[in-house]
Amino acid sequence: MSLLALEWDAAAGRDGRGALRILDQTLLPTVTEHLVVEDVDTLVDAIGRLAVRGAPALGVTGALGVVVAMDQAADEGWDEDRLRREVDRVRDARPTAVNLAWGVDAVRPLVPQGRAAVLEAALRVAREDEAANRELSRLAADWLLERTGKERLRVLTHCNAGVLATSAWGTALGVVRELDARGLVEFVYADETRPLLQGARLTAWELAAEGIPHAVQADGAAASTIMRGLVDCAVVGADRITANGDVANKVGTLGVALACREAGIPLLVAAPWSTVDLAMADGSEIEIEERPGEEVTMLTGVRVAPEGTPGFNPAFDVTPARLVTAVATERGVVEPAAGDRLDGSSDG
Amino acid sequence: MSLLALEWDAAAGRDGRGALRILDQTLLPTVTEHLVVEDVDTLVDAIGRLAVRGAPALGVTGALGVVVAMDQAADEGWDEDRLRREVDRVRDARPTAVNLAWGVDAVRPLVPQGRAAVLEAALRVAREDEAANRELSRLAADWLLERTGKERLRVLTHCNAGVLATSAWGTALGVVRELDARGLVEFVYADETRPLLQGARLTAWELAAEGIPHAVQADGAAASTIMRGLVDCAVVGADRITANGDVANKVGTLGVALACREAGIPLLVAAPWSTVDLAMADGSEIEIEERPGEEVTMLTGVRVAPEGTPGFNPAFDVTPARLVTAVATERGVVEPAAGDRLDGSSDG
Repeated sequence: MSLLALEWDAAAGRDGRGALRILDQTLLPTVTEHLVVEDVDTLVDAIGRLAVRGAPALGVTGALGVVVAMDQAADEGWDEDRLRREVDRVRDARPTAVNLAWGVDAVRPLVPQGRAAVLEAALRVAREDEAANRELSRLAADWLLERTGKERLRVLTHCNAGVLATSAWGTALGVVRELDARGLVEFVYADETRPLLQGARLTAWELAAEGIPHAVQADGAAASTIMRGLVDCAVVGADRITANGDVANKVGTLGVALACREAGIPLLVAAPWSTVDLAMADGSEIEIEERPGEEVTMLTGVRVAPEGTPGFNPAFDVTPARLVTAVATERGVVEPAAGDRLDGSSDG
Repeated sequence: MSLLALEWDAAAGRDGRGALRILDQTLLPTVTEHLVVEDVDTLVDAIGRLAVRGAPALGVTGALGVVVAMDQAADEGWDEDRLRREVDRVRDARPTAVNLAWGVDAVRPLVPQGRAAVLEAALRVAREDEAANRELSRLAADWLLERTGKERLRVLTHCNAGVLATSAWGTALGVVRELDARGLVEFVYADETRPLLQGARLTAWELAAEGIPHAVQADGAAASTIMRGLVDCAVVGADRITANGDVANKVGTLGVALACREAGIPLLVAAPWSTVDLAMADGSEIEIEERPGEEVTMLTGVRVAPEGTPGFNPAFDVTPARLVTAVATERGVVEPAAGDRLDGSSDG
């Protein structure tokens, strides 16, 4: 059983030319089913309904999606103009997913050089993502062990920043995986992460597959778990990190951060350098996406709030730098709460 | 449509002698159905499956439950010993619900004086609960308006401390109701309150019935809603308040409190004086009840976490006095974060 969100399956596809395989995350954790993607319609649909999600994973999906489009073009005899339009459909399948467009754009200039060049570049995007994740995980694990002075760590995490959100290894869960590889994980508390339950559905699935001891808790329990001394640190991913160290991440991260500071334990944000947006001075510039209220008022298809009661559903929150103990990227660990900045200058 | 959790219906019951009517909260918000309770089996079942819940409401249920048992005793010719055993069954229907036993014990000594005396005493328990709630709501509203300096308030609340948790009026939602009666409520954000969704199901139902503008949000959104300046205060109920002002309440309250302090807005705890436990010096003595993990891993009957992933499900958390801006009871408002104590001595 593959744990990867997506991979290039060299043995699949017409005439064994290879094809994109996507793990359908909408069915997890109860059903593990892969999609073999050989046409743009299937790919756009998979992206739109969140069968594949997570910023780094979408970057790789975009890059490999160009190969999918080129193969369909060859099969169906598309002209250049048609191919361009189909690649644009991949690029725009989720307008707010910056990484998707980034992944497409990273390989698109190579289309004139032919399929092999594009495929090689797309696979390089994936390899580089995995390499970044492994390096930042190593650096973060070292930092956590030194900062906490603990021999084994009890970790709290929020949302899913694991294999399922990246090409491989994961970011926040990559740190947990690195610690586990060293035999140093005692227990993981995974916030269920309402409304879409990425923690209960995806993070728990990854932890169970790795055999790492864990439990799922309501998001409201996180502050109390932290303040009661049940964990040594919290480790989360990020959607965007601004120059001063403010962090946009799944809604609920801010509450975890407040409790960590009160309890005197570190909050570590694990993310590849591509998540750092030095063009933004601080988090006040980040627009908070509001998703449909029905994600809150409906649960597994059942309405739980009264008819007519709206749901308020901000997808992200912004944790100010003063609450972010550390940001670990593949370039190193910086400490925003201590005055470090991502752009290298200092607040101190 | 009655909004009350329970009431004595003088026109119901055999020969019009009256009967206990309970609103079945397990069916809310989609179905509004009342149970007419005329026997102990029905009452014990209703309490056990949380058709009626909330500390003050259970106190009144216990008191009126003695009348239910006496009526059944008359109908079925029970002897004194049988009646005692049946009243004990009501008293013990939820062992952790202190108020249930308290309500039974408040009227039980009057059984030898006959049904009319017991019924009168039970109705007095209900009236006194409502009077306390109205008085503490009035005091809390005055305090909030003075403290915030606002003309209209945007309020965040957690769990359900409304009519449905009391004999009438409510505590935290009683404060909202009092402000609304003065035309001073701009908007209410109700945390959905996982795992049992008392906010989405019950608080939203009360607010909708009153026509108060509101929305339901994921618990993880609370910190961000507070820090973004979308509310002027948070108002919650309490399960127990210790002498120093520590507050045990539904899990998630602590996170709300941390965000309020960071944002510089007040957290007001609204509860009748019967919730204050002066025998407890502080919250470290409070045992945190853990409820079944399936309440977290299952949602509306559907398993959302992998098989084998346990749920960690503490029902309450303890907010330390330093984060509790105010406690409003019918006896007045004290300010634990400023050094006030519930027992009148001072930390200052």
